Amino acid sequence: MIKARIIVTLKNGVLDPQGKAIENALGGLGFGDVGQVRQGKVFDIELAHDDKVKAETDLKAMCDKLLANTVIENYAVEIV
Amino acid sequence: MIKARIIVTLKNGVLDPQGKAIENALGGLGFGDVGQVRQGKVFDIELAHDDKVKAETDLKAMCDKLLANTVIENYAVEIV
Repeated sequence: MIKARIIVTLKNGVLDPQGKAIENALGGLGFGDVGQVRQGKVFDIELAHDDKVKAETDLKAMCDKLLANTVIENYAVEIV
Repeated sequence: MIKARIIVTLKNGVLDPQGKAIENALGGLGFGDVGQVRQGKVFDIELAHDDKVKAETDLKAMCDKLLANTVIENYAVEIV
């Protein structure tokens, strides 16, 4: 079994109102040193085989087809 | 400036309907090898100082106070 972690983040330049809200909330809680905050998504996926090459290809296809919107988001695939 | 990444994931045993929906959707797209899928959140945070010890303490406090619900979620802080 292969375990993988996919991290999807907004591309630079894409507005992130959710991150901005967190930034303001952290400032309000007294964390004055906080600069930019950006929020993304993480997916922990288990695959029922042990072929790392196939896994990497499949995981990238999953990102392109479903998990990420590649117009505005980047993704990183990591096999753990 | 310190850049940090915080990853918040659901604890084992906590139901994750969103992850389950993604699991089913991936199956429907033809990825038959997909086992369990769990979704989490990632926060990329910039801090306006260079004190790694203070950063680690502050980031953990941010998770406890705002970013994670520690009843059902785990978090990992990583300074990048």
